[in-house]
Order: sequence, then C-alpha cells, then structure tokens
Amino acid sequence: MRKLRLYLLLFTGGLLTACQTEQLPTQQEIAPGVIKLQAGEIDTYTPYALFGGKPALEAMKQLPTAELPFSPDEVRIQVKDRGCMVEVPLADDEQLYGFGLQIETFGQRGMRKRPIVNDNPLNGLGYTHAPQTFYVSTKGYGILVNTARYTTFLCGSNQKKQQNLQDAEGRKKIATTTEDLYKNRSNGNKVYIDIPGAKGIEVFVITGPEILDVVKRYNLLSGGGCLPPMWGLGFKYRVKGDAVQDSVIRFADYFREKQIPCDVLGLEPGWQTAAYSCSYIWSEERFPKHKEMLDQLKQKGYKVNLWEHAYVHPSSPIRKDMEPYSGDFLVWNGLVPDFLTPEARKIFSDYHRTLVEEGISGFKLDECDNSNISYASATWCFPDAAQFPSGIDGEQMHQIFGSLYVNTIDSIYREMNTRAYQDYRSSGMFMSSRNAVLYSDTYDHKEYIQALCNSAFGGLLWCPEVREAHSAEDFFHRLQTVILSPQAMVNAWYLQYAPWLQFDRGKNERGEFLPEAQEYEAYACTLINLRMQLIPYIYNAFYAYYKEGIPPFRPLLMDYPKDKRLRDISNQYMIGDGLMAAPLYENKKSRTVYFPEGTWYNFNTNEKYEGNKEYEINTEFDQLPLYVRQGTLLPLSEPVPYVDPQTVFNLHCKVYGTPTASCQLLEDDGISYNFKKGEYNIVTLEADKGEVKLKRTKEGDLKRYQLSGYEFIN
Amino acid sequence: MRKLRLYLLLFTGGLLTACQTEQLPTQQEIAPGVIKLQAGEIDTYTPYALFGGKPALEAMKQLPTAELPFSPDEVRIQVKDRGCMVEVPLADDEQLYGFGLQIETFGQRGMRKRPIVNDNPLNGLGYTHAPQTFYVSTKGYGILVNTARYTTFLCGSNQKKQQNLQDAEGRKKIATTTEDLYKNRSNGNKVYIDIPGAKGIEVFVITGPEILDVVKRYNLLSGGGCLPPMWGLGFKYRVKGDAVQDSVIRFADYFREKQIPCDVLGLEPGWQTAAYSCSYIWSEERFPKHKEMLDQLKQKGYKVNLWEHAYVHPSSPIRKDMEPYSGDFLVWNGLVPDFLTPEARKIFSDYHRTLVEEGISGFKLDECDNSNISYASATWCFPDAAQFPSGIDGEQMHQIFGSLYVNTIDSIYREMNTRAYQDYRSSGMFMSSRNAVLYSDTYDHKEYIQALCNSAFGGLLWCPEVREAHSAEDFFHRLQTVILSPQAMVNAWYLQYAPWLQFDRGKNERGEFLPEAQEYEAYACTLINLRMQLIPYIYNAFYAYYKEGIPPFRPLLMDYPKDKRLRDISNQYMIGDGLMAAPLYENKKSRTVYFPEGTWYNFNTNEKYEGNKEYEINTEFDQLPLYVRQGTLLPLSEPVPYVDPQTVFNLHCKVYGTPTASCQLLEDDGISYNFKKGEYNIVTLEADKGEVKLKRTKEGDLKRYQLSGYEFIN
Repeated sequence: MRKLRLYLLLFTGGLLTACQTEQLPTQQEIAPGVIKLQAGEIDTYTPYALFGGKPALEAMKQLPTAELPFSPDEVRIQVKDRGCMVEVPLADDEQLYGFGLQIETFGQRGMRKRPIVNDNPLNGLGYTHAPQTFYVSTKGYGILVNTARYTTFLCGSNQKKQQNLQDAEGRKKIATTTEDLYKNRSNGNKVYIDIPGAKGIEVFVITGPEILDVVKRYNLLSGGGCLPPMWGLGFKYRVKGDAVQDSVIRFADYFREKQIPCDVLGLEPGWQTAAYSCSYIWSEERFPKHKEMLDQLKQKGYKVNLWEHAYVHPSSPIRKDMEPYSGDFLVWNGLVPDFLTPEARKIFSDYHRTLVEEGISGFKLDECDNSNISYASATWCFPDAAQFPSGIDGEQMHQIFGSLYVNTIDSIYREMNTRAYQDYRSSGMFMSSRNAVLYSDTYDHKEYIQALCNSAFGGLLWCPEVREAHSAEDFFHRLQTVILSPQAMVNAWYLQYAPWLQFDRGKNERGEFLPEAQEYEAYACTLINLRMQLIPYIYNAFYAYYKEGIPPFRPLLMDYPKDKRLRDISNQYMIGDGLMAAPLYENKKSRTVYFPEGTWYNFNTNEKYEGNKEYEINTEFDQLPLYVRQGTLLPLSEPVPYVDPQTVFNLHCKVYGTPTASCQLLEDDGISYNFKKGEYNIVTLEADKGEVKLKRTKEGDLKRYQLSGYEFIN
Repeated sequence: MRKLRLYLLLFTGGLLTACQTEQLPTQQEIAPGVIKLQAGEIDTYTPYALFGGKPALEAMKQLPTAELPFSPDEVRIQVKDRGCMVEVPLADDEQLYGFGLQIETFGQRGMRKRPIVNDNPLNGLGYTHAPQTFYVSTKGYGILVNTARYTTFLCGSNQKKQQNLQDAEGRKKIATTTEDLYKNRSNGNKVYIDIPGAKGIEVFVITGPEILDVVKRYNLLSGGGCLPPMWGLGFKYRVKGDAVQDSVIRFADYFREKQIPCDVLGLEPGWQTAAYSCSYIWSEERFPKHKEMLDQLKQKGYKVNLWEHAYVHPSSPIRKDMEPYSGDFLVWNGLVPDFLTPEARKIFSDYHRTLVEEGISGFKLDECDNSNISYASATWCFPDAAQFPSGIDGEQMHQIFGSLYVNTIDSIYREMNTRAYQDYRSSGMFMSSRNAVLYSDTYDHKEYIQALCNSAFGGLLWCPEVREAHSAEDFFHRLQTVILSPQAMVNAWYLQYAPWLQFDRGKNERGEFLPEAQEYEAYACTLINLRMQLIPYIYNAFYAYYKEGIPPFRPLLMDYPKDKRLRDISNQYMIGDGLMAAPLYENKKSRTVYFPEGTWYNFNTNEKYEGNKEYEINTEFDQLPLYVRQGTLLPLSEPVPYVDPQTVFNLHCKVYGTPTASCQLLEDDGISYNFKKGEYNIVTLEADKGEVKLKRTKEGDLKRYQLSGYEFIN
C-alpha cells in the first residue's frame, strides 16, 4: 500500500531546481501502541530486526491507550540522494529525553544530538557508549529511528526559512562575550532527523500516554527488562590488571576476614597470555593453577568475572577459524569477529563455553565501543569503511558491535539456563532484556549520576563505577552512588589495594595507607552492608522491569510527569517505587534535595520532608543519600557476606507513614531462567493493624525470605 | 578509456559474499607534475572546479620533474555502495603533513584525520577552520582528494588483516594505565581514504621532488599565491564590539598621538543595526555620521574593516531578494545565501559594493565555519542535510562556504582593480591566490604557532591573533608571534582599552591600567615598529608566493628536507628565504632554538649560532625572536606610521656574514592588480666590496624604495 508523490521543489522567486521523491510512509501497528512508519528500501541489518526479540504483547495490552499529540501522517519521511530525512512535529512547551546513555546532557531540546558509539562523549553532541536513535517526549510519545547508521537529530535547534520570520527586529544589544554571541536562540517547531546513506527507513512511534508508559512499551517491545541473578546485586570488586593468582586469593581472603560482603571478583587483562589483542588463554606465568584458584574462590563464595575484548590475537586458538568470519581491518593486530555471521558467533561462544564451564560467571567486554580521539587510540577503531563478511560496513557495525558481542557471550549462559551479569562498554537499542551493565572511563561523578537517569529512557543499565578519588568526600560520595545503582562495583583495575585504604592512585600503588584507613574501611563496610540489605527490594524492582518494563532506576519525572520542576532534575532518581536517591557530589557534605508531592522520610534518620519543596540535607560517609516515599513498606534484609542459591534473606520491614501498606517480592532460585516457566512464588508483605505479615502464593521448598521483624515510622 | 574490473570478493575459508566493482581510474596530467586519477561519477561541485582557477603553467614548467615513490596505478579507487575508498601506498619511514589549518597536530602519520570545517578542533581529529582533503609526504609527493564531502584519512593508523600477522607473540606486559593500554602501535603501509556518499572521485597526485616543490605546484595550480596590498602588511587593530563613532575616532587619535603605527581599524558587530543575523545597515544610534567618520579616518591614514557574517537578517535590505537563492534552513533567523548561484553572489556583492565605495577596505567574515558543539552554538550550523537551490547539500556547502563567501566579497575589489586584505574564519582548498587571512577563537598560543607551520602546506594565511593575556610574558610573546605572521593584528573585540595597558580582560573593562602600562606601551610600540621595518622584506616574500608558489611563512622542513630533526619542529618557521622565527611561549623568558645547517645570526644582538645545533636563547619583550641566515641581505625600512600609495620606504640594509649578497624587491603601486600587467619594477639590492647598491629594472615615476644606509655583520 505504498503511495508515491512526486514533488517539484519550487523555490520562492520562481527558481526551479531539483525534483525528488517524497514517499508517503506505510503505517503498521507492530505491537499495542507501537506504530511503524516505513518508506524506501530498508537496510539488511536494523536494530529491531537484530535485537527486537519477542514483544511481551500481553503486558503491552495492559497499558493504557493514548492519543498522540499529532497524527502519524505528520511525520514526514523523505528519501533523497543524500539519505533519509525524517521530520517530526515539536510543540513549544515540549521537552525531549533519551538518545541512549547520554552523560553530558539531560533535556535534549534545542540541541543537535548525534548518538554515535564512542568512549569519549564531547560537547554534548551525543557520542556515547550506548547510542540510541530514540527519544521520548514530555507530550507522551517516543520516536525511534530503526537504523544502525550514524544519525543526527536536530531537536528544535534549527529552523527552516518558511517557519520563522517574526524576529524582524533582531538583536540590538551588541554582545561582547562568546557565550552571549552564541547562545541558542532557536526554538524550532520540528525535530529534523538526518540519516545519510539510508535508502529507506523505519520509524517507530511509541505511544504513552506518559513518558513512563512509552518507556515501558519500548522495554516490553523487546520482551521486557532483564532480571539479574541475585548474586549480581551484591558487591563486585575488580582487582588490579597485573594481579597474579596469589594476590587474587589474598583479596578473596581480605573481604571474608574483614567481613566486607563481596559476591564477585573481577580479573583484568593479566589473566591472559596476550591482551590488546586477546588470546583468551589463561597465563600460566601469572596463574600457574587457575583451576585450583577458581575452585578455591568458589568455595569462598565468590563468582569470577574475566576481562576481555573481542579482538582476536594471532596466538589465540580461535584465530585461524575466525579469519574468514572477521572484518577486513585488524584492531591491535587482532581480528574483528563478524558476530552477524553464525560461524563467528559459534567459534567465539564454543571457545568461551570452556571458560564458563570452568566456573566463570560473566565477562567484562571492553573496547567494543569506538573512539573519536585521533592520537593514541585510533587503533581500536576499525574504520567506518571496513567491510565484514555479512555485508555490513564498519559504520553500522560500530553501532551494534557491543550488543552483538554481549549477546554472543550471553547465549552461552542462556543455553545453560544460567543468568549471567556482565560488564560491557557498548550497548544500543532493544537491549533491555540483557543481563549486562555499562561502565565508562570518563569518571565525572556528576555526569555519572545524570547517566543513571538517562539510562532509564532506553532500557540500559549503568554502573557509575568508583576507583580512585581526590578526597574522602569524593570517594565516599562515589561509593554511595554506586551502591545505589544497578551494579555495586569498585573497579580497581589500577589500584594495588582497596581504595578506601588509600584513594590516591600513586600512594595506593606504593602501599602508603591513609591515617584514617581503618575508619574508612569500616565506612565502606557499612555502605556495602547497606547494599546487601537492599537486595530483596532491588531484585523486586528488576522483576517489575522484566514483567512491566518499569526501569528499576529512573529519573523522577517518570513518576511525577505533571511536576515541571522535575524536567531539569537529573541528580536524583527513583529506585523501585518507594525509594529516591539524591547522591552527593562535588565535595560538599550536604546538598539540596527536591521532593515531589507527598511526604518523604530520610532513610538514615527518619526525618520527615514535605513534598514540592527543597531541603538542604547532610549525609555522612557511612550513610546512604536515600529517601523513602510515604506509604512504602521497605523490606530490608539482614546482610549476608555473599548470595548463593541457599541464601535465605531475613527481612526487617520498615513501614513509612501509614498503618496499611504492602510489598511484593519475587521468590525464585535467583540464578536460572526457570522463573519464566512459572517456577517462582510471589511473597507478599502486608502491614495492617500494627503488624506485618508474610504470605506467599504457594508454599514449598522455595523459601528465600523470612520475616524477622518490623517497625512503623511516622 | 575507462576499464572496469569485476571483483568477486573471496574470503579465506571459502565464504563468498558481496560483489563490487573496482574501477581502474583514468589518468591525466592536468598541469605539469599534477596527475589526476578519476573513477566513477564526479560530484557537480568539486573544490578544483569551483576554486581551481587558471594554473600558472609557465611557472609550473620551471619546476624540476620528479619520480613518484610509487606508480599512480598503485593508488586504488573503489566505488562502493557506501561511497568511495581510496588506498595510497605508505612507506615505513614516511611522514605526512597537511589537511589544512591543523592546529593540534603537525606530523599526521599514525592518525585518523577528518578535515571537516569547524570552529573548535578536537582530539586532533582534524576539524579545522580550513579543511583540506590534501596531504604532502616527505617522500616528495602530495595526494589531494577533490571533494567537498566529509572525508576520513587513516594515515597508517589502521591495518588490513592480510597485511600484518607478524606480531604473533603479542604484548606480554600488562598495562595499568590508559595511556599505556591505548598507545598507537600501528604502522600501516597504506593511507585509507573514506569518502562516504561519493559515487566517484578525482584524486590529484602532485609531484615534488621535495615537499616544497609539491606545495609550489599546488599553489601554482590555482594561479599562484596572493599578493596583499602593502598596507595590509602593516598593523591592524580591531576595536571593541560595542564601540561607537566617538570611541573609534579616539582610538584613531590614540595611535597617531602615541606614534604607534597602525594601518587598519576594524569595527566589530556594533556598526550594524542588527547582528546575529546581519542587517548590513550602519547603526545610526552608534554611528550617527558614519560617512563623516570614514572620511576622518581616511584623512588620518586609516583603512577600515567591517565585521559581518553571511546570514541575512529579516530587516536587511537584501533579505527579500535573497530568499529564493538561499538554503532551506535559517541561521540565527538569517537566510544562508547560496553563493553557488550567480544571483546570490550578485545580490550580495551589489549591496556590499556600496559599503566598499564608501571607503571600506575589507571585511571580517565571521562564523562561515561550523561548530561541533551541541549546546549553545548549534544555531549557526545549518544542518548537513540542508538543501540549497544550486542542488548542493549542507555537508558539502559547509566545506566550501567560507571560500565562496570570501570570493564573493573579494570579487567586488577585483572588479575595482583594488587589492583587499580580509579576515575570514573558514577557507578550503585552492584558495592560495586569495587576499584573506584566517583567524580563530581557540587561543592556544603554542597551537597558533603550529598552525602557522601547517598553513603553509595548503596555501593558507593565518593570523595567530592576540587579545587578552594572563601575564606580561603571555601577552608579549603572543604579540611577537603575530608581528611575525602574515597579518599583525590585535583583535580587541571585547577590550575597552589597548591590551598592552591592561591585558586582564576584567580590569581592562574597568579601565584599571597596569602599573607598567607606560613601559608596556613603549614595548608594544617598538614591536609594531619592527613590523613596519620588515614590510618590504615580507612584501617580497609574498611576491615569491605569487610568482613561484613559495609560502612566505613555512615550516623549516620545507627549506631543509634532508634534516630529519625538522620533521617534528612546528614551533619555528621561515619567513621568506633569510629569516627564521622561533617564538617564545608558555611564559618562559627563553627557549631552545634549533638551527638547521649553516650559520645564523640573532636579529637583535647579532650573536652567531652554528647550524645542526640547539641553543637556549633569551628574548626581551621589545625584541623579536628572529634569526637571520648567513648570506642574507636584509632590507629594513625606516618605520612609517602607516602605508599609503605615496609611501617611500627608506631602506637600511644589513648584510649577514658575507661580503657579497643580493636581494630583490617588488616595486609597484602596492594596491592594485596592475603588477599582473607588468606595471612594476624589480629593485635589486647588491652588496659587494663593502658597499650596497640599489638598482631597478626600469627608472620612472614608480619609486617605493630608496637606500638610506647599510651595514655588514660578521
């Protein structure tokens, strides 16, 4: 049912120039509330075709229907010689969010955004570890351009000449600063989307009515959010890059002896005989008996995670087999597997299965992004013009490489009916259901908090990891934030000792501990124990992510779409439905916290705050900058040193500002995908008449939770 | 005579994928020593077609012929679905330079360069005010890709998998710093050039035998270098953006009263009724009698330069006429003229002719580049996907916009047989013959010096302008550098008073002068007078630029191609054949200066230095960091307060380390193009037997030079 219109572009004044075809896009509802517009010839590899998965149709049907603020007919698609141009209406009072893991900006209106995969975001242009050609609007809809091509979004930053001639007076004030000269005075009434090279395009219009509904639909469209293994919600520590077998064991013993909870130890490049590029062979020099070590770690309750990247070293056992299924350019002399071919995926996953079977619980997939630095690091950027056996070019491969890579590894675990929880440095669209967390080297704490907010718009998980610091404030504020994130990880890949003993990198290397080392160790231990207390609550937030598509960590505006003050707040976020985090940063002992409507409680002190107001609040190093919504029943677990399938969580429930409240918890084995087959209970905690009771949907062997106490806070 | 080969890409291992056409390029010598390779369908608008001009064939024939280090057949051109890919051989010991006005890097080997027009270079990627898809090699050839498309050069930074499998051992050392991890270990044997979107391409191979010969050929290919008006080589001062008629006159009087030479006063945005975008109408509010002011300035010996950009404000008299000949997007609510159409050029130049006839000697063409900043300045970037009546898109228009703009204005002066000397913020290829100088806001002094070296590879002129400073060292070192550049300009567009009175911006605004203001004013006066002394010498260096294509300001490696130490020296440069500048920077009173072979003399002290050696040399604030090559006859003029057509330069000649030497000077009216019609003398200064004599080719009315004295320095 494709209609074609032939346009003659007539320029005012009678100049006749080019003729071009504008195609009236076809429209199709591909899932409840998701309309696909399509024009022209679609690329072989699109994010949705590759990663879209199976929509969770039943859950999508439960969502309210919504009117769009414009008709889908008003979304214009032009297929031109240069590529495709999409135009989407934009209202005056509309704000936009999204484009993947943006770390520099939050509201995107008035900006030119280029969500292109990169390790080093710059000038707010949109370069990111996880690019998404997808934005959501405060008007309650989302626009997703289903392409792996480098795409530019002009978010009301530019105006066409037909649109705006009113400012006839111009600026009379003469600016004498650059800022003043160049400030953005545009308020265009369109989003223009430029997709060079595309011969056709699919645009998904995702309906609301509110932003949270749009995000839910987006997550459900690829099957719903992920559910990490329960141990993944504990604490992870990555040891130094050149660690050897003995030093790893020393770290393992350190945590247990000091009673600092730790679930996962991560090994960095040194486990391999060659890194940059990778051999994927255990180094006998540094790990003479790695199997023995893995057994010891398992007995001590640890999971083990291995660093690698995808570039296959000449000495790797899979090098020869991978040769025909790799791109035509090398990276660090390593082959770049074409994970679009089943052969490359098989070779890679067959080999890695052996590592998994030896006891590896997940991998850290490094440098699967790209870099826009010319100098040193150009080497890990295979060219945009590279060619791959599957027929894709380097540009499009870059945008999806991280997703293909993590899926290849994840498939090993899925086949084994085991949930992994991996680290990866690049993601993209339709990855909501993947058990993997993004990380970065950029290390600006304020931006890391903002990234946590932005990750929610596109089904991404983000670890605002902590390493070294320049002060105790800097260190503990970072640790507090990472504790209140999808993955509580310290990534000490260049630190000899735990950073709470010495957060200065040079002094840490030399073993010069801080005078306060013991005190700080105790603070860190307290914070990590608080994380362990929150595991049941966070696990259940993930269950809502899986089942309903609700991001477990999300900006406040998703929960309070009518509160316009929240449009700019990207340094506070919700965790599940009852908790709000407001991390400290910039070395200040206190910060201003804005509370949306209702009444809120300080998690540490039980102090009460009224909504629609700001408060200046102090948080100590060993406290969490965490607030509880009135009406919440918060189940806190007695901390355990690590989580295993036998762990039973003893719950102490805190009921905030209400006599009646309830809370549900997913009770399953915590490690397999059996929950998808119905092998779970729902545990309900109910407060009523001054007491809290625990019920479960069915009684049986599966008992992860038991009630150990409760209190009512008013 | 196009041959086509059909390739079946067979991947090792037997995987059969795409088929693609590789075209054997046609070869044609388009000018002596310039071979054009061509394949596929060429874009309508290419830099050479637009700006190439008429090659100076006679001068090109004088150049030595050269063997290429490879056969042109080895330059491979592929026309693919994605665009064109060009592959050029690269030897192990080869270094590359060029890509336009690069400011962050000098030797480009091992880098990924993207010469894309931009106001804000980043990460050494190649973004620049003056992008050129052109590099030169120490092997004595140049490669020019004749395209206005965004092009990426992989300068040996990446390797194909067929090429390099030797490093089978890999890296055994485990890096624990990011620098160490990511250092560039590539040394590819090809330059890969990616031109997305192109359906065909022309590649010019420009022969040497040395880099200087390549550069000469490149400059001569578009008719030879420019010759500025003599007054353009004097001193230019740009007053504050919000200056009014009285304050401009006060500045004019200040220079004359203090006997500080000044040829040109530049007015910033405030002269117009509307700027951002521009009305091009004199503001009666700030300049109630602008014609009277222009007359006064003329009588005081000043030329006047006006700031503007090309974006046409709704209130501009040319707005309505320009409407049909402008792009479909606005910039600051202004129309973007499509200078590719004769109509836009005519409307724009007809209007500006009135301004010129009132006495304007040139314009400062701002913001004709682009920006890669998302936040504030996105507004002056018309989209890459913009469309223009000529049929070009925004991407290609961006790359040539500055060149088209400056040519439009320059054409007014050419028609009047008058040489202008303009400022512009964007240039491109084949602009050698244009009387215009680039400037920038980036303001890193060391990079500014490096840009001076890089400008020489592509026929560009660069003004490392000075404004405010953070110390006396910083200020005077900047002033020294700009004095030793193509345009000696202070760009005080946000300073109330001359910066030598107070170089701190805030204090300058408040009129709080430095305690040393009087002393510093005297130093500045001395330095500017030194510039006036150098005018005849510099003017003649420009004549060699015009006639032989020799850049007047150039890196040392052009003059000493065999000295490999010079491959990395980008903080020293030649001025003409006899002078070398080694500017100070980074607040140090002295610096290391490397002298190439031969003997050199300190311009200030006559101290002698032996070549192939380094010296640590001190330079005072009121001296120039300038060195003279043995054998040079340096004609220094008695300073004049400004240059006019009647100016006669009294020459004091200094002869360095030799009894016999000579020097030639172009003697013409200094303002018109009559020199092209033979209306000039060549004045020869000859030292022999202890005296210096002046001769001219023909005696007549034209006498710009007279000999007033000489000295021999040994």
